[in-house]
Amino acid sequence: MLTAQYAVRGALVQRAEVLEGKLKASKTSVPFDEIIYCNIGNPQQLQQPPLTFLRQVLSLVECPELLKVPGVAAAMPSDVVARAQAIIRATAPSAGAYTHSKGLAFVREHVAQFIAERDGGHTANAEHIFLSDGASPAVKVGLTLLLRGKSDGILLPIPQYPLYSATIALLGGTQVPYYLDEANQWGLSVRELEQQWAAAKRAGVDVRALVVINPGNPTGQVMTYDNIAEVVQWAAKRDVLLLADEVYQANVYETGKQFHSFKKVLRDLKSPLQCFSFHSVSKGVMGECGKRGGYMEAVNVDDAVVEQIYKLNSINLCPNVPGQLTVDIMVKPPRKGDASYERHTAEMREIFDSLKRRAERLAAMLNSLEGVTCNPAQGAMYAFPQVRLPPKAIAAAKSAKVAPDAYYCFQLLEATGICVVPGSGFGQRDGTHHFRTTFLPREDKVDKVARLMTAFHSEFLKKHA
Amino acid sequence: MLTAQYAVRGALVQRAEVLEGKLKASKTSVPFDEIIYCNIGNPQQLQQPPLTFLRQVLSLVECPELLKVPGVAAAMPSDVVARAQAIIRATAPSAGAYTHSKGLAFVREHVAQFIAERDGGHTANAEHIFLSDGASPAVKVGLTLLLRGKSDGILLPIPQYPLYSATIALLGGTQVPYYLDEANQWGLSVRELEQQWAAAKRAGVDVRALVVINPGNPTGQVMTYDNIAEVVQWAAKRDVLLLADEVYQANVYETGKQFHSFKKVLRDLKSPLQCFSFHSVSKGVMGECGKRGGYMEAVNVDDAVVEQIYKLNSINLCPNVPGQLTVDIMVKPPRKGDASYERHTAEMREIFDSLKRRAERLAAMLNSLEGVTCNPAQGAMYAFPQVRLPPKAIAAAKSAKVAPDAYYCFQLLEATGICVVPGSGFGQRDGTHHFRTTFLPREDKVDKVARLMTAFHSEFLKKHA
Repeated sequence: MLTAQYAVRGALVQRAEVLEGKLKASKTSVPFDEIIYCNIGNPQQLQQPPLTFLRQVLSLVECPELLKVPGVAAAMPSDVVARAQAIIRATAPSAGAYTHSKGLAFVREHVAQFIAERDGGHTANAEHIFLSDGASPAVKVGLTLLLRGKSDGILLPIPQYPLYSATIALLGGTQVPYYLDEANQWGLSVRELEQQWAAAKRAGVDVRALVVINPGNPTGQVMTYDNIAEVVQWAAKRDVLLLADEVYQANVYETGKQFHSFKKVLRDLKSPLQCFSFHSVSKGVMGECGKRGGYMEAVNVDDAVVEQIYKLNSINLCPNVPGQLTVDIMVKPPRKGDASYERHTAEMREIFDSLKRRAERLAAMLNSLEGVTCNPAQGAMYAFPQVRLPPKAIAAAKSAKVAPDAYYCFQLLEATGICVVPGSGFGQRDGTHHFRTTFLPREDKVDKVARLMTAFHSEFLKKHA
Repeated sequence: MLTAQYAVRGALVQRAEVLEGKLKASKTSVPFDEIIYCNIGNPQQLQQPPLTFLRQVLSLVECPELLKVPGVAAAMPSDVVARAQAIIRATAPSAGAYTHSKGLAFVREHVAQFIAERDGGHTANAEHIFLSDGASPAVKVGLTLLLRGKSDGILLPIPQYPLYSATIALLGGTQVPYYLDEANQWGLSVRELEQQWAAAKRAGVDVRALVVINPGNPTGQVMTYDNIAEVVQWAAKRDVLLLADEVYQANVYETGKQFHSFKKVLRDLKSPLQCFSFHSVSKGVMGECGKRGGYMEAVNVDDAVVEQIYKLNSINLCPNVPGQLTVDIMVKPPRKGDASYERHTAEMREIFDSLKRRAERLAAMLNSLEGVTCNPAQGAMYAFPQVRLPPKAIAAAKSAKVAPDAYYCFQLLEATGICVVPGSGFGQRDGTHHFRTTFLPREDKVDKVARLMTAFHSEFLKKHA
C-alpha cells in the first residue's frame, strides 16, 4: 500500500495549496497573483461552463416539486421538462434510492444504444454494462478481477496515467511496462508489446491484461484504425484481456484523426478478444468531474465473469445516482428538432473548438522553448513535453533530493504559480525528463501560462547555465 | 476474490428480480401482487419521501440559473436560497469540478462542528475528516490501510454487516469473529473480545482492528455508555484500532436508550485509542442512499496515517459532489428561526416516529410466531429474528442444497413476494437460523408484511411438520 503513488495529486499539488493559502493571506508573499492548476483534467475548476441541458434536467429530478412552481415549466425548454419527467417516472418512487448494483436499467439501455450508434451498428448488451462513480473505480474492479498475486502482470504503457500503477501496487500485482515511441508521436508498437510480454513470461509473470489509453493520457496521441486492429490481433493471440481506457473518446482535435473504439474494431475483426472498455462524464466537453459518473462495458466475457463484476459492484451497493443520470444525458443528448438542440450543440461546439485552439497554442509555445519538444496533442486534455535539462539543473535536483523533472516543476510553481505534474509521475525513459500540463485554462489564461512559462524557462536555463 | 460474499444483494434478490419480471409480464404468474424488498436499508425505494430542504438546495446548486427564473426565488424559503447561494459561492466557479480528495473544506468544517456539538464539546479536526461516497468505500480505505496479508486479522461481530467480511476477503486478511450475545439483547461482551483475541494470537494472527457496529446491523441493539467505555479500554489495552460503524446514530427508537459515539467516550476517558468512525447520508431519516454520501473521522492517528488515507482517496480523485453536499445538509440542517425549520423538523419527526412504530410492530409480530424470537430493534432499520426450523425443513434444505435459513427465505419469497436476507449472510451461531428484515415498508405495507409472514409461517410449519 505504501508503494502506491499518485502524482496527479502529489507533493506539487500540496505545495500549490500551501502557496494558495499564503497568497490569500498576503498578495505580496509570492511572486504571482494566482495559482493556475494545470495538474489535473478538471475543466470546471478552470471555468469551463457546465452544459445547460444537463443541469436543468438534473435540477428538476432533484426537486420534482419545482415543476409545480409557476413559471418554472414555462421557463424551461420543453425537452428538459419531458426528459426530467421521464427520469422521475423511471426512478419512481424516488431518485434518492439505491439502484441496481449495475446502475439504472434505462440508463444502461441508453448506453448500449449509444455504443451501437458509435460503433457502426455493432450491438451492445445492457446487461454487460456497469455504471460506475467515474472510470477510476471501474478500472479498479477490472484489475481486482484480474490480479491474483505477485505473479500476475498487467501490460502498462509508459508514460501512463498513474491510476493504473497505483491500483496494481495496491492489489499486489506486477506492472509490465511497455514504452510508447515518443519519436513517433507516442506510437504504440506491437513489436514492443511482444518483447515486453515475452520478457515477462521468461521472468515467470503471467500477463493477464493489456492497458491501452486512447486517446492517450498523458501523451495525447490518437490511434489509427490499423494500429488498433494490430493490437487486437496481438492481444487475442496472446490471450491477454484488453483494458481500453477510452475516456477521451470525444476529445480528438487533429484534422484527419478520428476515434475508433476497440469494441468496434474487435467486432469488425470478429475477434474473440475479451475487453473491458471505460468511459466517463468527467472528460469530453461535459467535464462533469465532480459528478463521478462513468461506465464499463464488458465485451466477450463469460457470464461467470459478469457475475463476479456484479458481486464486486454490489459491495459498494451502487454508483451515485446523479452521476448515473449524467451518463444518461451524455449518451442521449438532445436530438435535432428538440427544443434544446441548438443551444446544447452550440455549447458543445464552443467548448470543443476552444479546447482545440488551446491544444495547438500550448504545443506551439512549448516547441518554441529552448531544448523542449512536444508532440502535438491530437486528443485528450494534455501536452507532455520533453525538457532537456542542463547538467547544473540535474545536479541541483540531486542536492535537493528530488527527481530532476520534479525540480523543474517545483521551480516553475514557485516562480509562476503554474502547477504541472513531473513526468516521473507517469513514467518515462531513463534519462529523459517531461512534465504534463493540461490545456484547460481559459483562452486568456492559456496566453498568460504561455507568457509565464516562456519567461520562466529562459530564466531557468540562465540560472543553471 | 471469489470467496467474497455479499448476501444483501445475493441469490435471493436476484430471484426476487426474476419474479418481479414475471409479475410484470402476467399478474397471475405468481401468488402475490408485488415484491416487497425488505432485504436492504433503502428507505426511498419503499416510498419514504426525501427531505424537502435538502432537495430544494441541491436543485438550485445544480442549476443556479433557476434563481433568475421569475417566481423561483419567491417560491423557495429564504434559507434555501441563502444556503444554495452560499454553496455556489463556496464551490465557485462550479460545483461540477473535482474537489479536494478529502472533500470540500467547508463541508468538512461543518462536519467537525456537528461532531463537536454531538460529542458534548469534544472538538474535531476538519483535516482528519474524509468525505466519501457513502460509508462503504471509507470502510474499504480503512481496511486497506490495516491489512498487509493473511496474518493480519480484524475482529468482527457475528452477526455482522457483510461489507466487512467481503472486504477482508478481497484484501486477503483474516476474519476474527466475536459473537454478540443474542440472549442478552445482542450484547457485546469484553470477555468474548479478549477470548477471541487471545485465540487469534495463539494462532499467529496479528489482530489489527476491532469492528463495532452501533446501533447494530443486522441486530438493532444500542450500546450503553458503560459498555462502550469497556470496549474502548479493552481496545486501547490491546492496541487494536477501532472501526466504529455509526451510520445508524440517528436511528435510536427505544425509550431510555441513547446514542453515544465512540469518539465522545474515548475523549471522556482521555484514551489514546486510535479510531476510524463512519457516518452516512443513506440512513438516519434522510435515507438518501442513491446520493452515496458519507464521511470517516480519523481519531488519534498519526499524521503519517492521515497522509496515507489522503493518498488512497486521491486515487479515486474525490467523492461525488452531490453526495458531499448532502452530507453538508445532514450535519447543518435548518436552525430554529430559519424559514424551513418548522417544515424540516416536522418531516424528520414524522419519518422517525413512523420508523419507531414500524420497528415495534414488526418485532411484536415476529415474536408472535411459533418458534420465532426477536430481540427488540432498539435502533437501526432491521429486525433479526431467530427461527427454530423443524427437522423436516432442515432435511428439505439439505436436499435442495441450500442453507436451512436460505430455504426458509426462498419459500417466503416464492409464497409472499417478501424479500429478506438469510442469517447465514451475516453469520450466526452454528445450529441457529435467522433472517434479517428491514422495517422500511410504509405503515400499511408493514401491516401487509405482518399478515403475509404470519400466514406463511404457519403454513410452512404445517408443511414441514
